[in-house]
Amino acid sequence: MNVLVLNCGSSSLKFQLVDSVTETRLARGVVERIGGQALCTYEPRHGEARKYAEPIRDHAGAIQRMMRWLVRAGVGADDLTGGGAGVIDSPGEVHAVGHRVVHGGESFRAHARIDAGVIREIEDCMDLAPLHNPANLSGIRAARALLGEGVPMVAVFDTAFHSTMPEASYLYALPYQLYRRHRIRRYGFHGTSHAWLAQRYAERAGKPGDAVDLITLHLGNGCSACAIRQGRSVATSMGFTPLEGLVMGTRCGDVDPSLVEHIALKEGLSLREMSTLLNKQSGLFGVSGLTNDMRELLDEEREHGDRRATLAIDLFVRRVRHYIGAYLAELGGAEAIVFSGGIGENAPEVRRRVCDGLGWLGIDLDPAKNAAVAPGTEGEVGMDGARIRLAVIPTDEERMIARETVAVLAQRPAQG
Amino acid sequence: MNVLVLNCGSSSLKFQLVDSVTETRLARGVVERIGGQALCTYEPRHGEARKYAEPIRDHAGAIQRMMRWLVRAGVGADDLTGGGAGVIDSPGEVHAVGHRVVHGGESFRAHARIDAGVIREIEDCMDLAPLHNPANLSGIRAARALLGEGVPMVAVFDTAFHSTMPEASYLYALPYQLYRRHRIRRYGFHGTSHAWLAQRYAERAGKPGDAVDLITLHLGNGCSACAIRQGRSVATSMGFTPLEGLVMGTRCGDVDPSLVEHIALKEGLSLREMSTLLNKQSGLFGVSGLTNDMRELLDEEREHGDRRATLAIDLFVRRVRHYIGAYLAELGGAEAIVFSGGIGENAPEVRRRVCDGLGWLGIDLDPAKNAAVAPGTEGEVGMDGARIRLAVIPTDEERMIARETVAVLAQRPAQG
Repeated sequence: MNVLVLNCGSSSLKFQLVDSVTETRLARGVVERIGGQALCTYEPRHGEARKYAEPIRDHAGAIQRMMRWLVRAGVGADDLTGGGAGVIDSPGEVHAVGHRVVHGGESFRAHARIDAGVIREIEDCMDLAPLHNPANLSGIRAARALLGEGVPMVAVFDTAFHSTMPEASYLYALPYQLYRRHRIRRYGFHGTSHAWLAQRYAERAGKPGDAVDLITLHLGNGCSACAIRQGRSVATSMGFTPLEGLVMGTRCGDVDPSLVEHIALKEGLSLREMSTLLNKQSGLFGVSGLTNDMRELLDEEREHGDRRATLAIDLFVRRVRHYIGAYLAELGGAEAIVFSGGIGENAPEVRRRVCDGLGWLGIDLDPAKNAAVAPGTEGEVGMDGARIRLAVIPTDEERMIARETVAVLAQRPAQG
Repeated sequence: MNVLVLNCGSSSLKFQLVDSVTETRLARGVVERIGGQALCTYEPRHGEARKYAEPIRDHAGAIQRMMRWLVRAGVGADDLTGGGAGVIDSPGEVHAVGHRVVHGGESFRAHARIDAGVIREIEDCMDLAPLHNPANLSGIRAARALLGEGVPMVAVFDTAFHSTMPEASYLYALPYQLYRRHRIRRYGFHGTSHAWLAQRYAERAGKPGDAVDLITLHLGNGCSACAIRQGRSVATSMGFTPLEGLVMGTRCGDVDPSLVEHIALKEGLSLREMSTLLNKQSGLFGVSGLTNDMRELLDEEREHGDRRATLAIDLFVRRVRHYIGAYLAELGGAEAIVFSGGIGENAPEVRRRVCDGLGWLGIDLDPAKNAAVAPGTEGEVGMDGARIRLAVIPTDEERMIARETVAVLAQRPAQG
């Protein structure tokens, strides 16, 4: 069964075509800067990636472009943009579509097969994720228009994995009526990634998925930590929005909430401008004044001893350590800590600093193993016999979305 | 030496006269609702507390009232309000004054003998603590006017104990220029209380003050946690203001900073009103919709099984547990956890829930010991042999301010 995984951002489309039986990726691609001269990347399983620019107006246009790449005899099969690199013979070989949807609000505690009712409910969550859900919806509509409603589609929500959090974990200490009136609570994000990490960890450990207590760390440009008890999320660091929690590439994570007013007054900023400051100008970038890229900060520190690069890394590491401690208390101990995301997978130096001096808590990194994990591969990096295992597992949200899509469709057979 | 300890709030004066050699409290009192019909309470060491109301215009008036109580032959010594309850023969027996000052900004890394320069610097910090520092200053001015500049006075700052935090602990992951331009950083509060707890713990343990690694929990109507390494604060939960961190009586503590904008828009509130919501209508009170008083919540839960009382307690406890875990990671282990403040000292049930299931981390409460600590007394509540000791130590900020006052004056002899 070929599952097409679609992830629509406000001006981007990421896609991946997955053979769900073998979990092989047949092709993938990205269209960025939709609405103008778009940057297109297409990479079939066999053959080189192609990159070029062409004008693409909207998500519908991007999805059409994608289909012309994927289908062997499609329009444009003989042009420079994708010629000869198709991986299926007709659109009918897309058997199902899994859509990443950022926010499922409280309506969706599980992923859902898309129908008119589900689309309405996703619209109802728009208010909670004004930056993301509209793009996700526009991708859903375009895909349904192009592929027809006969192709089963599933909405896979970033929030769903965290729907198992207990009330005391998802509520804020705010007036309770704000929860009743406006559904103001912690939702958590990166759920597909944390679910993948928990599942892969259990597979590797040879245990059932509901038998592991873990702390999973998704450390990419966005970062979040998750406390997992018996395979289920019981606490996570992102909150009502993806701003809260860890220090990220350009997001501040946790700050004194009084600062919103204070900075707005001092700098003469509107609330909208404050939101930009907290989401786009803070984090590693804001502290270093240099970059949101951890690799560049590590290079800058190593090559020039840059003070603010070190400071940004220190803030990042310190916050991760605090969440590890907090979630060890949350869980009353854990079997393992799993590192993932661009930083978690590829920066052994960050893993080293995160674990440094935590022997007291049963966290003991093996420097040789830590250095030996090749990018993109799984590995154990803890000392043998340490109380907590330390694992590196590359995240694979697309593969997880394909899995979830198949699982949802297996529950509710196609009606068409 | 008699040290008068003054703590001026925006419409209140708390005072205590302490014999600094024996550390005996000679008298204490409170004047509330200054500016109208004030509520006055005066309690000499021997004799009953007196409570009554009288009009008091300002802090100067409140300090005059206080002196009439304290001095045996003072004006009003024969009236109903304090007659016969004086504890000194003349104002000259006030040998020094220790003023609590909330915010010392970055100027004051230590407590300071008050002179014109110090007053100017405290004025400069006004912007950082607009609710507190003006009242503290008005108390300083009134006391100098009434007692004369010949009486040495010391400013004891809530923030000073936390000035040892390293940069990566006090900076937020915000654009670095906000720190340079506006000194936006974590300051921490309750410093006098955390310092007292560290000192008392070390005294009880028979160790030098700089030899203890501790987590101190000041859990009152305001709440904060502090990670103490070798007697010095290295991290604390309150931040730029006392809003951040733990769940408090009416303050929310940590929330997603995006919520400030979202709630303001949804509820049509100004930033000022948002500040009131976060500081005065949240916390235990906001969640329970009932009270900011932990005792009342515990009663309500026990007697009626009130759902939202339990929820408020659960949020409170969960946050404390998270900070304990975070600070164990910060310190790489700790010798002890110290409970203090109205809740920490007097609610064994809260201590029990905070420690529940943390055996993995070396935290193991002894239920019998926990129940046996009498209000206002010190005690150990951990199991013998547990990895982390658990102590209950009543805070005594007034006594600590008296100690700090004497210490500062010993460093810099009076010039007058």
